[in-house]
Amino acid sequence: MKKSIGAITIVFPTPVFVVGTYDKDSKPNAMVSAWAGICCSDPACVSISLREATYTYSNILESKAFTVNIPSEQYIKEADYFGIVSGRTEDKFSSVGLTPVKSELVNAPYVKEFPFILECSLLQTIKVGLHTIFIGQIKDVKVEKDVLTKEGSPDFEKIKPLIFNPANRTYYGIGECLGKAFSIGKK
Amino acid sequence: MKKSIGAITIVFPTPVFVVGTYDKDSKPNAMVSAWAGICCSDPACVSISLREATYTYSNILESKAFTVNIPSEQYIKEADYFGIVSGRTEDKFSSVGLTPVKSELVNAPYVKEFPFILECSLLQTIKVGLHTIFIGQIKDVKVEKDVLTKEGSPDFEKIKPLIFNPANRTYYGIGECLGKAFSIGKK
Repeated sequence: MKKSIGAITIVFPTPVFVVGTYDKDSKPNAMVSAWAGICCSDPACVSISLREATYTYSNILESKAFTVNIPSEQYIKEADYFGIVSGRTEDKFSSVGLTPVKSELVNAPYVKEFPFILECSLLQTIKVGLHTIFIGQIKDVKVEKDVLTKEGSPDFEKIKPLIFNPANRTYYGIGECLGKAFSIGKK
Repeated sequence: MKKSIGAITIVFPTPVFVVGTYDKDSKPNAMVSAWAGICCSDPACVSISLREATYTYSNILESKAFTVNIPSEQYIKEADYFGIVSGRTEDKFSSVGLTPVKSELVNAPYVKEFPFILECSLLQTIKVGLHTIFIGQIKDVKVEKDVLTKEGSPDFEKIKPLIFNPANRTYYGIGECLGKAFSIGKK
């Protein structure tokens, strides 16, 4: 039996993406987006939804670039901090002690300490309502060597990404592997 | 030390959303999208990215509506099956023994057995490249009563959503709660 809970913005799971940008004075900034994900395979693109009120919004319009940085569990406090304060009033990288590295491919910084990062150039913006979708073309993905499998593929269980539960605003880790996609359904 | 792995479409986590639509003959269909998520809070919107080759693509353009159905772990096989075969050649609901329920709000069916569903009307489409983003305005969210908390909020740990790992195409469950957002970062 289903109960209606209204037109709310809750789905499961949502990611914890730290978005890296430069402001007009080249100060690096980082914010958190849970409303984001891959949106095209060719060209390879990722989208993030931002309110105009955020510092990152104007940074991307100016720099035409951003990075998506995926924190591992061990950086839960730093990632959460990035979502609490504004880059307008603070140098967040300095506050949490993480290192911004200037991308050689796009005009944006990535988080040195995070295991998995995407470097993106702005391809398109779409105003939906309060939020605007920023579509970034993925120019490269960089992964810490110690979270790669022997075959050189990103190892989910070593990366240990955070999962955001928007219903009560909590972070979760990943659980057990339950099966192979495009396979378990054949049974 | 980071290693470049190229401009690939991998992020962590991605969701397992079953998208419900009607075709032009009102046959219900279900497909799986991992490239999807909330994209605006006002109006409440969710986006899914689809290739033109999919049956769902033309269904949504015709019906102007879709549902997003979040399977719990127990429906991993059914959800995976929805992603393996095409609705062009098969009635997937019948094949897996799940029940399509006609939404009273939009022209699309939802999956009766799944714990958490969103009913959406098509608001906008954006062609990015091989994929097109379909933005759906969320008209209502319906939740199985037994996965609500005492306070009437969706309970993540009872819903048990699937998490997709695109790096090696496997499904995971959710792990432990690691902390409260907008809070743990203050420490």
